[in-house]
Amino acid sequence: MAVTGTWPTGRTLGYGGDYNPEQWPRETWDEDVRLMREAGVNYVSVGIFSWVLLEPREGEYDFAWMDELLDLLHANGIMVDLATPTAAPPAWFYATYPDARVVTHDGIALGPGSRGAASPSHPAYQTAARNIASRIAERYADHPTVVMWHVHNEYGAPVGEDFSDAAVAAWREWLRGRYGTLDALNEAWGTRFWGQVYGEWEHVTAPGPTPSTVNQAQKLDYARFTDHQLRALFTAERDAIREHSDKPVTTNFMAAECPTTDLWAWAREVDVVSNDHYLTAADPRGHVGLALAADLTRSVAGGKPWILMEHSSSAVNWQPRNIAKRPGEMARNSLAHVARGADVVGFFQWRASRYGAEKFHSAMLPHAGTGSRVWREVVELGRQVGALAELQGSTVSADVALLWDTESFWAQDQEWRPSVDVRHKERVRAYYERLWRDGLTVDLAHPGQDLSGYRMVVAPASYLLTAEDAANLTRYVADGGTLVVSFFSGIVDAHDAVHPGGYAAPLREVLGLGVDEFLPLREGEEVTLAWSPGDAAEARTLAADVWAEDLALDTAEIVARHLDGPAAGTAAITRNAHGAGHAWYVSTRLGIEDLAPVLRAAYADAGITPPEVAEDVEVVVRRGAEADYVVAINHTDAPATLPGVAGTELLAGVPAGPELKIPAGGVAVVRTAPRDGGGPDR
Amino acid sequence: MAVTGTWPTGRTLGYGGDYNPEQWPRETWDEDVRLMREAGVNYVSVGIFSWVLLEPREGEYDFAWMDELLDLLHANGIMVDLATPTAAPPAWFYATYPDARVVTHDGIALGPGSRGAASPSHPAYQTAARNIASRIAERYADHPTVVMWHVHNEYGAPVGEDFSDAAVAAWREWLRGRYGTLDALNEAWGTRFWGQVYGEWEHVTAPGPTPSTVNQAQKLDYARFTDHQLRALFTAERDAIREHSDKPVTTNFMAAECPTTDLWAWAREVDVVSNDHYLTAADPRGHVGLALAADLTRSVAGGKPWILMEHSSSAVNWQPRNIAKRPGEMARNSLAHVARGADVVGFFQWRASRYGAEKFHSAMLPHAGTGSRVWREVVELGRQVGALAELQGSTVSADVALLWDTESFWAQDQEWRPSVDVRHKERVRAYYERLWRDGLTVDLAHPGQDLSGYRMVVAPASYLLTAEDAANLTRYVADGGTLVVSFFSGIVDAHDAVHPGGYAAPLREVLGLGVDEFLPLREGEEVTLAWSPGDAAEARTLAADVWAEDLALDTAEIVARHLDGPAAGTAAITRNAHGAGHAWYVSTRLGIEDLAPVLRAAYADAGITPPEVAEDVEVVVRRGAEADYVVAINHTDAPATLPGVAGTELLAGVPAGPELKIPAGGVAVVRTAPRDGGGPDR
Amino acid sequence: MAVTGTWPTGRTLGYGGDYNPEQWPRETWDEDVRLMREAGVNYVSVGIFSWVLLEPREGEYDFAWMDELLDLLHANGIMVDLATPTAAPPAWFYATYPDARVVTHDGIALGPGSRGAASPSHPAYQTAARNIASRIAERYADHPTVVMWHVHNEYGAPVGEDFSDAAVAAWREWLRGRYGTLDALNEAWGTRFWGQVYGEWEHVTAPGPTPSTVNQAQKLDYARFTDHQLRALFTAERDAIREHSDKPVTTNFMAAECPTTDLWAWAREVDVVSNDHYLTAADPRGHVGLALAADLTRSVAGGKPWILMEHSSSAVNWQPRNIAKRPGEMARNSLAHVARGADVVGFFQWRASRYGAEKFHSAMLPHAGTGSRVWREVVELGRQVGALAELQGSTVSADVALLWDTESFWAQDQEWRPSVDVRHKERVRAYYERLWRDGLTVDLAHPGQDLSGYRMVVAPASYLLTAEDAANLTRYVADGGTLVVSFFSGIVDAHDAVHPGGYAAPLREVLGLGVDEFLPLREGEEVTLAWSPGDAAEARTLAADVWAEDLALDTAEIVARHLDGPAAGTAAITRNAHGAGHAWYVSTRLGIEDLAPVLRAAYADAGITPPEVAEDVEVVVRRGAEADYVVAINHTDAPATLPGVAGTELLAGVPAGPELKIPAGGVAVVRTAPRDGGGPDR
Repeated sequence: MAVTGTWPTGRTLGYGGDYNPEQWPRETWDEDVRLMREAGVNYVSVGIFSWVLLEPREGEYDFAWMDELLDLLHANGIMVDLATPTAAPPAWFYATYPDARVVTHDGIALGPGSRGAASPSHPAYQTAARNIASRIAERYADHPTVVMWHVHNEYGAPVGEDFSDAAVAAWREWLRGRYGTLDALNEAWGTRFWGQVYGEWEHVTAPGPTPSTVNQAQKLDYARFTDHQLRALFTAERDAIREHSDKPVTTNFMAAECPTTDLWAWAREVDVVSNDHYLTAADPRGHVGLALAADLTRSVAGGKPWILMEHSSSAVNWQPRNIAKRPGEMARNSLAHVARGADVVGFFQWRASRYGAEKFHSAMLPHAGTGSRVWREVVELGRQVGALAELQGSTVSADVALLWDTESFWAQDQEWRPSVDVRHKERVRAYYERLWRDGLTVDLAHPGQDLSGYRMVVAPASYLLTAEDAANLTRYVADGGTLVVSFFSGIVDAHDAVHPGGYAAPLREVLGLGVDEFLPLREGEEVTLAWSPGDAAEARTLAADVWAEDLALDTAEIVARHLDGPAAGTAAITRNAHGAGHAWYVSTRLGIEDLAPVLRAAYADAGITPPEVAEDVEVVVRRGAEADYVVAINHTDAPATLPGVAGTELLAGVPAGPELKIPAGGVAVVRTAPRDGGGPDR
Repeated sequence: MAVTGTWPTGRTLGYGGDYNPEQWPRETWDEDVRLMREAGVNYVSVGIFSWVLLEPREGEYDFAWMDELLDLLHANGIMVDLATPTAAPPAWFYATYPDARVVTHDGIALGPGSRGAASPSHPAYQTAARNIASRIAERYADHPTVVMWHVHNEYGAPVGEDFSDAAVAAWREWLRGRYGTLDALNEAWGTRFWGQVYGEWEHVTAPGPTPSTVNQAQKLDYARFTDHQLRALFTAERDAIREHSDKPVTTNFMAAECPTTDLWAWAREVDVVSNDHYLTAADPRGHVGLALAADLTRSVAGGKPWILMEHSSSAVNWQPRNIAKRPGEMARNSLAHVARGADVVGFFQWRASRYGAEKFHSAMLPHAGTGSRVWREVVELGRQVGALAELQGSTVSADVALLWDTESFWAQDQEWRPSVDVRHKERVRAYYERLWRDGLTVDLAHPGQDLSGYRMVVAPASYLLTAEDAANLTRYVADGGTLVVSFFSGIVDAHDAVHPGGYAAPLREVLGLGVDEFLPLREGEEVTLAWSPGDAAEARTLAADVWAEDLALDTAEIVARHLDGPAAGTAAITRNAHGAGHAWYVSTRLGIEDLAPVLRAAYADAGITPPEVAEDVEVVVRRGAEADYVVAINHTDAPATLPGVAGTELLAGVPAGPELKIPAGGVAVVRTAPRDGGGPDR
Repeated sequence: MAVTGTWPTGRTLGYGGDYNPEQWPRETWDEDVRLMREAGVNYVSVGIFSWVLLEPREGEYDFAWMDELLDLLHANGIMVDLATPTAAPPAWFYATYPDARVVTHDGIALGPGSRGAASPSHPAYQTAARNIASRIAERYADHPTVVMWHVHNEYGAPVGEDFSDAAVAAWREWLRGRYGTLDALNEAWGTRFWGQVYGEWEHVTAPGPTPSTVNQAQKLDYARFTDHQLRALFTAERDAIREHSDKPVTTNFMAAECPTTDLWAWAREVDVVSNDHYLTAADPRGHVGLALAADLTRSVAGGKPWILMEHSSSAVNWQPRNIAKRPGEMARNSLAHVARGADVVGFFQWRASRYGAEKFHSAMLPHAGTGSRVWREVVELGRQVGALAELQGSTVSADVALLWDTESFWAQDQEWRPSVDVRHKERVRAYYERLWRDGLTVDLAHPGQDLSGYRMVVAPASYLLTAEDAANLTRYVADGGTLVVSFFSGIVDAHDAVHPGGYAAPLREVLGLGVDEFLPLREGEEVTLAWSPGDAAEARTLAADVWAEDLALDTAEIVARHLDGPAAGTAAITRNAHGAGHAWYVSTRLGIEDLAPVLRAAYADAGITPPEVAEDVEVVVRRGAEADYVVAINHTDAPATLPGVAGTELLAGVPAGPELKIPAGGVAVVRTAPRDGGGPDR
């Protein structure tokens, strides 16, 4: 059945969250819908963990309560994103199919009493999951309040890799499909190293416990296989739904936080991209991580609006120290997602649970009830989201792309790399935050995609880079683009084999240099660079750590040189003219502050002029058919002003500008005349 | 058979320790008893790890060596606490019943070559344990030197929880007994959360490995079950002994250090309470931990004298750095136990072992022999204990009760709590140490018990607090008591479900406030409070960390306010008049120093005047029928004086007072006229 | 067949490394041999991980490629050390014999996909290993380019202990052989402690998971058993080779870095001692660790020249931060090995691997190719090694022996020792480095060997010291030797039982004191000593940490006293005249700096005058039949001069001295007239 249902109907932003009324007595449901209306809730997700309530014994179904619930929500004008409950198999499932349990690397089978899928590779689970999805879709396909299907929950968490017998059998099949012959597999994995050549398919094992470190190409493929198996689980459920319904199907991603899923591939399978996002409590600048997650979500969605399926009204419960949000912070977070393309603001969850693992997770309606600060802010946010209805469908464009390749991250973060201090995540965040602080809106991009629409491309962690993707980057520069590459990029091919010609060989042409040797620094060691850009007035020293390199320069010019450390006297940062563009190479680790002059110089090459914004005032533009919407979020404790923004401030419904005032900790959303020019129209 | 034997016979304190002569040649036994007499030893525990020597093969017994040993001890006037050896099953037991091994959470079966019980739930172990206990009791019931039975060793250590098949089967039976129906279990565990509803008893598993965190009510019940199984093991052995003997039965507790046993329940099952205590070497104030352990032991014993079964003459061997006791320290430790109610001073062990895991554990007779400092102090301590014979049977009373509820601790210290920095143990120790430094003697108390005899009740960590127990505390205050409650109290019910009405709801009336939200602090973050008590001269600032809260005040008055941090400007510490009493609430974590003004103010409400004692001079009174005994222990390097203590100093046998002098590092025990008034007579 | 083959043939030093051409296309082999000749390579090891290529299916062999390879190498004049490939069983082996996998302590079976032996105790592996060794030896026994056999790879790493069923069965057999009767085993293990007495051999288990700590004598025996099983694997392969060949057999040790092998025993089984050595990257003074490893290798070889089988041209890949060598460092490392007795300079590996776990390991020919710094230095080093041909066969002698007893280390580093801060390795390194800095060449020695040739013996970590070995040390002193003993020595016998008479009892006579009690210090605690040697001008304070002791002095004189800490006022360092010699005892932990005055005083007793060398200039003498060779390595950034060294500097081929100049970071090797006198001629 083709997807013809559209969602949402009408021009409005969604507001609501996960709703688990099965945890409460029936009378509470009535209070719930009354309070939802008070808070402006127009959308909820239901049934996410309800498998055992819908199918209390294998093959016995109970839909009565769900019928009643959906009717009640419909009567109150609340749209429903109806879930398949397959992320929480019932206890009877584990008891009936004990060998369908996920098995850890060390051989421990994971049982019931918690949540998390069974083995994605086990036929019993595949069958049971498809079946319950089909039953639900069949029953509620035409229910008027159901506007979308929510499959499963956060694929890849809390478990991803599986070492069960079922997984190993599926793995061999997957490998046959990928490689065709054992010779091809042996070649790809380099099994002649350490004498690992396979002579029979049945001899290939999962990368389980081994005496020394395991074959890294095998492990990389196991990450691909894991992603594939999870995705196959999703598409099987999706297709089971499609047999009954033409409404859109989604599943909630975890954007930057789920290492087991390759969202570029996943986004192609969903009708609408959804995301869950939670602040990292230990990070005092968690709002930057939020922006990165939102930008990634928008990017995998191809720029289309997306759904913020879950975030939190205040603290979560599963981090070491669960920091509560302070007044105004929830609204800043919610509207930052909207600014970066979300058309729904959703929470986990509507009402705080009294029991279970997440009883200390905040909710729209907290344990303390409607007298609480959180409730008051939830109601006010509902009003604000309502005032932004016209933003629905508008999009965000960016001048800068930051490369994000999940396969590279899988490869890079394995064991036995040159230095444990080099982590892809750290570099991605550092470059992203530098761009964020400079007021630039960023898309995440795959190195193999068309990059011609961007003024600048930044590659903070492209350890695995195929020759084809490197050629794509080279062409991009030749055609006039500006490329910034961080160290430990272009090292291996798709099988984690070092490129012929040495480290970074596929980038040699565009960077104008080769990397002769890595010079990791000792723990805590710092080195100093002399930064000598074209403009001598900007000369200064920069501090770096973790990494240095022994570079062999071809055509690149030196813009910073090591003053000390193992690379003393040699090039640290270079710039290479290639065709109509320029490629920068940063061969050491600079902190966010010290990245500033480097990127500023690269912006100049790219023709980018960063906007003048006060520190920690976040400004993003959503572009609609008839208007632009400038969303300005003040993360500071002082009022801020933004020049040159005139129009109507929608939250307060008042004229704004030409100097936009944003109160301390506040948000402003201004409808302005559409900008011409600027970023690409993608 | 009713327990009619009394112990000890005659008015004397016991002195001795674990005696393991089976490790030594027969000629050493003669030297042992000679040296025991030299040291004043009148009591030993024997046979604790002797199963394989008494039953070398299943069903074959060898009692000859034990006959000879008991006769030798009897001939030398040494009383024996005769053990059942079930804490060390023989190798043949493990080989014959491999499935009776304890299995860890992760599925590892624990085998022989060490010590520690087999699975408490396995019939083979239950049978074998009862059998050997019965055989020993039968043979030695009438031996005149046996004055008591010592069952097993330190139940719950080194292993508590067990995930063997036998355990899981017993667990299901225990749950049936506890809940009757699956509906009741599902309700209690809140299994509708995360779709965990059970439809068959056989589907219920132990809280083993799961993909995400396990149901916390289930885990809490597993702690109760574990405690129950261990206790059933004890009572089975006890009852097997009772069929043959009317002498009292005990087992050695580990007081504050054994998280798997609920001593309130255990103490009801023993005839005499015994305890083992070892200093925490890393704690420079380990003597305060000792006092807490001794007070807890006395409290679970209902105030009756108890047995210090084991402590050490110097270092132990199982801590990371095993700090030796310095001259005089052993005597201070031993007599501190006596001060807090011990009628026996026992050691592990008499003679240092040459082999095995504890060869580096100190002993009464160390490897270095009788020329050593330790031996000289052991002999002198024997003399001192002898001089205190008349203390036997005297008791200790306290004005202050500190709440201790093992079930609450089990619940609180699970995963996914608001902050990993909040540990019940830390707060219990902090409040206890504040009271200790203030010179107050403290009972530990269960929140559900009659508290009317105490002037003040302190609740440092009552996370799990049933509505009934909260009502008990409320009545206590209404009737004139003073209650001090620390944060994160009154949160959940007996099933780890948040109380209806929100956090701390059952305490809302007595505290005069509600807790709207937790505001955990970041790692290392500190906040400042303005302490503004009634007496403005005492106004000051206080430092706090780890935790703050968003309070909703009803009738409570603010006595300290946050100056900064997430709760800046709001109440931090409150006082509420309720009925004839007052309830204090401390919503953040204060160090021991900064707790001082808060408790001083609460003492005033309670009508408590802390005694004037020099810092680190510990004073406790034991009250006999005809006299009080003031025990004063000087933990400092300088002589101390104590005013108003006159009578006879028993250790030296000289008149003392009215200014009692206690030498640096020394102890004085003064027989004085009985005090009238003061603490409650319980 | 007797070993009659000699190696190397002719007077030359070997230069080369592991060569794994099977990872590369055939055309690369031609480039390889061409470049080997350019670099002066005259020796390679081949076939180390080639099992699956030589025996692709069980019983099917493919020697064609090896035939071709050996002929190619022979044609280019490159000697081959031909390996048995048993350190990397093929995937078919694991699939065919799954129960031959090594099992960890916690029961995890280790499978394929990596490297590392199967269970040394499993008959299938034993058979398969002997078989492939025999096949290879049979085929290539007479190949003219094969000069030596290289068995397996780094026995004991990456796995040593094995808890498989096969291991447990072999363990029981080994115990029967060692003890004869169960009574003897029970006595040796002290199983009467904790009731562990065994009544049947089949009841004895491996020291696997247990509730509390495992019997330490059992664990110590398991270390002996593990070493024995690995060694039996070696000797079985060696003997299989001997049936076909009289060429020497070796295997590559890991000297100081492999805790599972007792090299004193291993060295007796090989024809030539070989060693692998890698710098510890985190150690800024890794070159001292190199010297220790080289000295240990020479010592276990009985002073005979040895083979440096593997080291690295630059960084390795398996440490947390893999620090690259800086210019000149490789040569300093290589020639330091030569200085201490190596006749071959070998690398892992010839050409950097593109795939697999070690792709980031440096090589003679790096990824960056022949344009790289590393390649240039490899070529230059080849020239230098060639210039040192005449050093072949010369030896090194030492005045000082430092005790090294693997059994003692196994025993000491178990659980439940008095302090986790005491590690044998730390003390060995500290004393070794003190001697290194003082310019003294050191042999490692077993405490039971003839020590009469040494002026001084240092015992930094002799926890396990049998009465016989202690008597050997006592005799050594009585006969005029100088002995320096560090704390925690002489504590237990061969079964980890405390010596009768107390700690250090077997050393009481020679040290003139007893150790009454250990006084471990708290974490981070420091104490101060007053050092009062005979010469009052040298009086000073010394800082110590970790450990102190309560000593009972008999005849020893105090040379340093504790000023504070738990042993305040008592002896810290003593000196005892015994017979014609002196024994020093250092009862606390001194840093390398503070050890200086103590050892200087001991040198005086020993009649040792440390040479005058600049700090971090390493000087070692190799003595040939006609000349001495002074190797001087300048580890500093400044030029150094060495007085009194005259002759011919071989690397440059120029006259040198009488003031030898060594450039910053450089090495000089001077042929001089042979010294008379000096160290012993062993």
